[in-house]
Amino acid sequence: MSRKSKEEIAEIYKKMQDHICRELEIADGTGLFTEDQWERPAGGGGRTRIFKGGNILEKGGVAFSAVHGPTPDKILNKLKLEKADFFATGVSIVLHPKSPMVPIIHMNIRYFEMDNGVHWFGGGIDLTPHYIDGADAKHFHQEVKKVCDQYDSTYYSKFKDWADEYFYIKHRNETRGVGGIFYDQLTAKDDAEFGKILEFSLSLARLFPKVYGFFMNKNSQIPYGENEKSWQRLRRGRYVEFNLVWDAGTKFGLDTNGRTESILMSMPPQADWEYMHEVAPGSAEEFTQNHLKKGIDWLSFD
Amino acid sequence: MSRKSKEEIAEIYKKMQDHICRELEIADGTGLFTEDQWERPAGGGGRTRIFKGGNILEKGGVAFSAVHGPTPDKILNKLKLEKADFFATGVSIVLHPKSPMVPIIHMNIRYFEMDNGVHWFGGGIDLTPHYIDGADAKHFHQEVKKVCDQYDSTYYSKFKDWADEYFYIKHRNETRGVGGIFYDQLTAKDDAEFGKILEFSLSLARLFPKVYGFFMNKNSQIPYGENEKSWQRLRRGRYVEFNLVWDAGTKFGLDTNGRTESILMSMPPQADWEYMHEVAPGSAEEFTQNHLKKGIDWLSFD
Repeated sequence: MSRKSKEEIAEIYKKMQDHICRELEIADGTGLFTEDQWERPAGGGGRTRIFKGGNILEKGGVAFSAVHGPTPDKILNKLKLEKADFFATGVSIVLHPKSPMVPIIHMNIRYFEMDNGVHWFGGGIDLTPHYIDGADAKHFHQEVKKVCDQYDSTYYSKFKDWADEYFYIKHRNETRGVGGIFYDQLTAKDDAEFGKILEFSLSLARLFPKVYGFFMNKNSQIPYGENEKSWQRLRRGRYVEFNLVWDAGTKFGLDTNGRTESILMSMPPQADWEYMHEVAPGSAEEFTQNHLKKGIDWLSFD
Repeated sequence: MSRKSKEEIAEIYKKMQDHICRELEIADGTGLFTEDQWERPAGGGGRTRIFKGGNILEKGGVAFSAVHGPTPDKILNKLKLEKADFFATGVSIVLHPKSPMVPIIHMNIRYFEMDNGVHWFGGGIDLTPHYIDGADAKHFHQEVKKVCDQYDSTYYSKFKDWADEYFYIKHRNETRGVGGIFYDQLTAKDDAEFGKILEFSLSLARLFPKVYGFFMNKNSQIPYGENEKSWQRLRRGRYVEFNLVWDAGTKFGLDTNGRTESILMSMPPQADWEYMHEVAPGSAEEFTQNHLKKGIDWLSFD
């Protein structure tokens, strides 16, 4: 893929939102997306699509946005950049399934460009099972690695480590889930590399409904009871803690007058907190707790 | 009251925790506090008391701590202070009632002192009704003002405005509840003023079980149904958003390796999120939404 303009990238990402929504509706079987179009007072806007009436999915959304205007001071100061206008476009997804046996998933691809030529890509995909299953985590990482390896043999290991660092709930000393990949501020040195990174982000986005559709179908058939539902609500509480306390994207959005309802579409439908919750020795909950760690090589897990 | 040493203040605050716990157990009727004693690796520790088995209260705690050691860099940098050891003690309370008709309440008193003589008091009390009732808010502010006025005729209006600013959910453009008072870094210029501020903090703490006991008793008798419970869960979600995104105390604790379970005892038992929730015109929920604003003079509300 050759170099594309920011407007072209926004168009491609918008079509990707369409593709992903369609695939998720098919995988779920009954739920449908409803769309909110919104405008950003300072420039640009977006299409937030929220899932309703799901058979497998309980709450979640697939959001597209393309915003522009003067670069917020927060970014300028943090990255020591000169004043200039910016353009940012991306697709962002969080899905909370009904069943505690189906993992929560998050995917994001984004492109940022300034009038002075500064540009970068960012993104990632990570899986947050309420119950960690070694084979599922392995399959997920294998699929993500396959996509990475098509573009750059260094991507997977670099971006896997980055995800372990990023999706980390520091005050709990645990990872959000089994990780995946995360990358940010990838700047292309020439048109060929630009095309490569863009194409990589699109392949990742195309992987998303395939790999998550697999878990939706397979794991929604696993029976569960009230014990598993109650653990799910506690794990959803940790998801809330990560997003509101540590997630740089969420914090930045809330801090800079982003569209709150679109940013917080990542919140679960319901979350519980319990003081000093303890998992039973030998339980699946304990197995999960013990595997919320950085640095696990899921590819060779067995 | 004359000047007290930091150890004496810690002892007084600890007794205050005992007093408040006893009063709350009486007001609730069935629930009891269980205690966790903990130590801080860098110095000091605390007694976290969590409420269980309540008739009126569903979840909450009354925490005492007295910690010391090298002052964290975050504080030194923020306040441009020279390196020195610190000592900090306080009582912190958050209570989530079962009934959506009973408000959530928060109270905190704290004292901070450094080896180089720097010292200050901080604290506050604020009420977060799931359903705002003008008469209740008026009564609460009247009681708080009475305590303030005993010590300083400027306290109430200064600290009421401070609470409006502090207990504000910026990304929702709404206050957390009907406010109350908030104060921080009150430094005494002499022993008499030191005694006055300390005594003020104790009066505030003594007011707490009286005024909240009044609401526990009165409001737990108001009938409610599933509609009110579901609104309560959404409002609890906003409480979570405030505490995790904006509350300086929570953020500081989580950032500096505080005891997570004690810090997050403020979390509700359960919280819901719904995309773009809309309140019905003319409903009690709409009345509440319309009164989550800064600058309301609750004393003259009718």
